Amino acid sequence: MDLTPRIERTLEQALRAAAGADCPPRLADALHYAVFPGGARIRPRLALAVAKACGDDDPAAADAAAAAIEFLHCASLVHDDLPCFDDADLRRGKPSAHRAFGEPLAVLAGDALIVLAFETIAAAPMRRPERIGALVGVVGRAVGAQGGITAGQAWECESAVDLAAYHLAKTGSLFAAATVAGAAAAGAAHEPWRALGETIGEAFQVADDISDHVGSEAQLGKPAGRDKALGRPSAVLELGLEAAVGRLKSLVARAAALVPPCPGEADFRALILHETRRFMPSGMKTVAA
Amino acid sequence: MDLTPRIERTLEQALRAAAGADCPPRLADALHYAVFPGGARIRPRLALAVAKACGDDDPAAADAAAAAIEFLHCASLVHDDLPCFDDADLRRGKPSAHRAFGEPLAVLAGDALIVLAFETIAAAPMRRPERIGALVGVVGRAVGAQGGITAGQAWECESAVDLAAYHLAKTGSLFAAATVAGAAAAGAAHEPWRALGETIGEAFQVADDISDHVGSEAQLGKPAGRDKALGRPSAVLELGLEAAVGRLKSLVARAAALVPPCPGEADFRALILHETRRFMPSGMKTVAA
Repeated sequence: MDLTPRIERTLEQALRAAAGADCPPRLADALHYAVFPGGARIRPRLALAVAKACGDDDPAAADAAAAAIEFLHCASLVHDDLPCFDDADLRRGKPSAHRAFGEPLAVLAGDALIVLAFETIAAAPMRRPERIGALVGVVGRAVGAQGGITAGQAWECESAVDLAAYHLAKTGSLFAAATVAGAAAAGAAHEPWRALGETIGEAFQVADDISDHVGSEAQLGKPAGRDKALGRPSAVLELGLEAAVGRLKSLVARAAALVPPCPGEADFRALILHETRRFMPSGMKTVAA
Repeated sequence: MDLTPRIERTLEQALRAAAGADCPPRLADALHYAVFPGGARIRPRLALAVAKACGDDDPAAADAAAAAIEFLHCASLVHDDLPCFDDADLRRGKPSAHRAFGEPLAVLAGDALIVLAFETIAAAPMRRPERIGALVGVVGRAVGAQGGITAGQAWECESAVDLAAYHLAKTGSLFAAATVAGAAAAGAAHEPWRALGETIGEAFQVADDISDHVGSEAQLGKPAGRDKALGRPSAVLELGLEAAVGRLKSLVARAAALVPPCPGEADFRALILHETRRFMPSGMKTVAA
């Protein structure tokens, strides 16, 4: 089943509530611009898939968790693109938020999306509102200073960096939130889902490094070759292309093996193998087969 | 009773948890710098005072709500000081966060403090965890795009501005969160506390405008006369000094009259009159007497 319509609907509803009459019009525009049209919505689709594999007994909780994770992802893109970080002109094939709206509204849109993520969880019409605390905690950890996305970005401001901690914080943490929050939304024991999310995140990061190396700007919707230009760590620059592809394959296999026991285990494992193929750069789709 | 030690302890504990081994050291330093030493902690003291007036039957909830509000206040100061907004060199008598740590870490510290606010609520050892949803909702509304602080700041990016909406969003919203969240933390009907918080916020804003006009940089810990220099709205520039002081007096009287019925009503009303005197610029302390 395609989960995308369910995700887009939740994002639209939450954003409409957050950007109504009391929201300055240009901020409302910037928020919409940062969220729509989206990318592949990989993280919220992963969250919903895990919730379904765990029985999905509270769909409003799963929807809210998935939307929160996507809002945080969009916030991180808007802030990462700012002149003081990547100074990126393009994102998803259009001008980055600060190029389109100016730097003040880009900072504020990112801030407001972080807030909206938590509001979305708190406002969801859940059957089991006692799950709100766990969901806020899991999602907060993924973006906070203690190993979350802000920590990942802040490692770029340090002279000495632990590469594994850097990638885990910058990319793995939000994938881990997707699997863990998906399970928590469905009332399952959720920490057993963390290693799976982190491994999918690592696979995604390697695939992203490969894309940056072999893709074109038209394919990526942003400039290619940025890792090398910005001196950023990259599996391709570190290992070479062939070994990076090998690493990607082994991460996908490891992810499939890490699926915890759950009602929908077999289907979910097949989905993981199918979905991780979406990570592949065009022309390399068979790599994970 | 002085509530400050209780507040400082909660802020320190929450920050220690958020800036531990998995937090890049310079980000940890920037977070600490943004929160300590604090200003008057007016908002969290207000939140705790309301919780006490309402019976304070879940002190951990009140502590967490108060700390969350202060973290969000600190985040807003760090981001407002950024070069793309006020470009402020000084804050609380020391270099602003981006002057001390650079712009990337200032953006990230603000982001991480927003996240930490919500994590603090979710992680509190509450007796009544079913209050988490209301607290996250109330606090989120105060800083979100729909009439919260980000909306307030974003009004500065519009060509036409409703001044009342601007002040309510930029200043009133977080004071309203303090009263409303204080009541919600204690399990009281919380929306009746909103008008009081908004009125205190309005009084604070007028007092701030007066301070900016009559204070010195040494008294303020930041440059004086910024409203005029930056063309920002100000009650003093709009009404003149004398009428602004009159407006402040009437707002304080209105606030005292807006205290909802609660077990500690008389004491709380006296506290409001005492505390609002702290807003007064040095040499004008008798104004609200």
